[in-house]
Amino acid sequence: MNETEFLSSLARRSSDPAISWLMKLTLDQPDLISLAAGFTDNETLPVAEVGALTTELMRDDAAGRAALQYGSTAGDPELRKLTLERVCAQDGITPSAALTADDVVITNGSQQLLYLLSEVLCDPGDIVLVEDPTYFVYLGICEALGIEATPVRLEPDGISLDELKRTLQRLKDGGALSRLKFAYLVTYFQNPTGWTTSFEKKREAFAILRHYEAAAGHPIFVLEDAGYRDLRFTGPDTPSLKSLDPANERVAYSNTYTKPFATGIKVGYGVLPRPLVRHVLRSKGNHDFGSANFNQRLIALALRSGTYDRHLPKMQAGYRRRKELMGDALKKHFPSSAQWQEANGGLYFWPELPASHDTSRDGAIFRAALDAGVLYVPGDLCFASSPLRPKPKNCMRLSFGGTPSAQIEEGIKRLGAVLRTRGL
Amino acid sequence: MNETEFLSSLARRSSDPAISWLMKLTLDQPDLISLAAGFTDNETLPVAEVGALTTELMRDDAAGRAALQYGSTAGDPELRKLTLERVCAQDGITPSAALTADDVVITNGSQQLLYLLSEVLCDPGDIVLVEDPTYFVYLGICEALGIEATPVRLEPDGISLDELKRTLQRLKDGGALSRLKFAYLVTYFQNPTGWTTSFEKKREAFAILRHYEAAAGHPIFVLEDAGYRDLRFTGPDTPSLKSLDPANERVAYSNTYTKPFATGIKVGYGVLPRPLVRHVLRSKGNHDFGSANFNQRLIALALRSGTYDRHLPKMQAGYRRRKELMGDALKKHFPSSAQWQEANGGLYFWPELPASHDTSRDGAIFRAALDAGVLYVPGDLCFASSPLRPKPKNCMRLSFGGTPSAQIEEGIKRLGAVLRTRGL
Repeated sequence: MNETEFLSSLARRSSDPAISWLMKLTLDQPDLISLAAGFTDNETLPVAEVGALTTELMRDDAAGRAALQYGSTAGDPELRKLTLERVCAQDGITPSAALTADDVVITNGSQQLLYLLSEVLCDPGDIVLVEDPTYFVYLGICEALGIEATPVRLEPDGISLDELKRTLQRLKDGGALSRLKFAYLVTYFQNPTGWTTSFEKKREAFAILRHYEAAAGHPIFVLEDAGYRDLRFTGPDTPSLKSLDPANERVAYSNTYTKPFATGIKVGYGVLPRPLVRHVLRSKGNHDFGSANFNQRLIALALRSGTYDRHLPKMQAGYRRRKELMGDALKKHFPSSAQWQEANGGLYFWPELPASHDTSRDGAIFRAALDAGVLYVPGDLCFASSPLRPKPKNCMRLSFGGTPSAQIEEGIKRLGAVLRTRGL
Repeated sequence: MNETEFLSSLARRSSDPAISWLMKLTLDQPDLISLAAGFTDNETLPVAEVGALTTELMRDDAAGRAALQYGSTAGDPELRKLTLERVCAQDGITPSAALTADDVVITNGSQQLLYLLSEVLCDPGDIVLVEDPTYFVYLGICEALGIEATPVRLEPDGISLDELKRTLQRLKDGGALSRLKFAYLVTYFQNPTGWTTSFEKKREAFAILRHYEAAAGHPIFVLEDAGYRDLRFTGPDTPSLKSLDPANERVAYSNTYTKPFATGIKVGYGVLPRPLVRHVLRSKGNHDFGSANFNQRLIALALRSGTYDRHLPKMQAGYRRRKELMGDALKKHFPSSAQWQEANGGLYFWPELPASHDTSRDGAIFRAALDAGVLYVPGDLCFASSPLRPKPKNCMRLSFGGTPSAQIEEGIKRLGAVLRTRGL
């Protein structure tokens, strides 16, 4: 059967996600230590708490019935209200006529919002600016939707403002700026680097983007992915890009309740610019006409009862311990020619090797690591294709999130030995 | 702001779903009796059962942790296995090398599968055959994706085979058959009519579709939406179209666990033709990389423990009572010029008035019904546009699913009075 005869363009553009072959490698070699999975900490999952919450939810007959019935496409009204209050409190801003619970949409994890927003804004050939490197699943969305993901170099405090300006100017000069719809920025403990964008860079990047709107002929939106914001275990919080958009016209802010709590419950949300709300809702209506109401009521109860906020410090302490285990092991076992930043939150370290060393799937390091019984995410997967630079192949994403803590040092030790035997 | 300057073609094609204004009418007039909502029976929701299931799931620490962690894109392996066994048992077929649990994908309700399958098979301008009338939310998906939904008249035992042949021949003669990707058939207690496709018609329709594949130049798939199959309260079950496809090459079968159990938990599934599995999974990977694992484990436990199957007869008895209430009220209060079939399952009656009477949103009957405090779904919403016939405007969808049983007769009485005062 020739599949190109019946598949859509979208399906023909899509390829198997990296996660497929990474998982297959894990399954094929059960003694492998995986530092590749973006899984969250199994050890601090709130099993007893979720048991108690569901018992409480089902004890009240009316509340139980409401949770087991359909909800609306936008989501549970109480959860939307709590979400708005929570985001505003985190950012030190206040709800206003421009920013209400009607601008909040509850989604199947934050991932769904990335898809919905890309789908309602972009036709094939349109452009989205992405960090370089960026969240590799988002590159898969771009591929499927035919979006040109255009990379802007990421520095430890956010994208390079000089490169942002050069990129926008180049698009303008080439007559391509009208195809630029938004910038996708993972601003907290980014996947894969673990880096956080400073507030100063948010402000300047946002101003630069707005400056080019006249030439674009339409708004240039920002999709701020704050999915790791609450996995912060050191240092102060940073206000969001959303806080720089009091008129609620440009920034779509996405986050998840369940990455810091229990990923299996999968409740995310978007706080959307007013002009996009109805379009995202129409599309979500077609996708599933609303996320599971049960999960939303459960999270609303977790928030209302204080269970959620009591869990956060436990979860953060769990990640801090894991991060320290990995950080200490890296210092002990990795060669000094490898460079990385300390993580203050999130799930990842992002070591960079000297440029001549190839960490990609087909390179010798990845193979040798597999032979040594350790798996990582090759860094090149996180870079968009670009005619302006080859994909860097000398980085690796190491996750301390899902690996059993007893295996973290051993995994890093094996990987360090692989690097040292290769002359690093 | 001129939205057409920044929205995608998909967003520009999309319009607000009918459910939006129907819900708004309900909210604006709180004493309204709504016979419009496709909600499920609130009275038989298994509140105590779900409480007990979650308690059991969280009591076992390992099972609890697994449920609260990420799962895979395709879904929980146990639930996929149970699903295959269940579908095969219902259809009296056996799993084979061609039909395994690997062909099962767990989705966010069955709705998500409709979207995913349409997205991976159809480009704008492609054609899907739909029943006339059909599930109106599916027409919204077609609109968004730019699919030409081409109607084939539905009779009480399934689509008209003569009209199916004529339609296929017309497409062939017009050189359009290569754009036909699949037929979307709601084969059990259809939404909106409540009608069930006979096995004989399934067999013949499937043979007719296959006959035209040579001219199409590619497979013509069938998407069999069996979402109401388990809401059967009278008469025997009918084998699926899937049972006619032992090689697992053509029929995508979709159903939901939660419409007959608890819609708020929202777990659906597809049993997919082998050639489509990887494409649907790639797309689902982009949408959400897997449905909430917690809900899947909960449903798997409900199945394994027998809770699910013990609930079904209670739920079916609840719907039978509601259907009898509405059927009796229709006989008592509706004019004899209105025609309908008795429902043996599902949620709907579909009365047809003499052709001159307009039930549409802008017609006098709909307005008069609102004034009388009763809401229905105007039947014209369920018909695809077609150059070959005007949309029938003389039907109405009446749901006995979500309306409190104490209100069903009163709602029908009000509606009957409206029809009688209009000379019916």
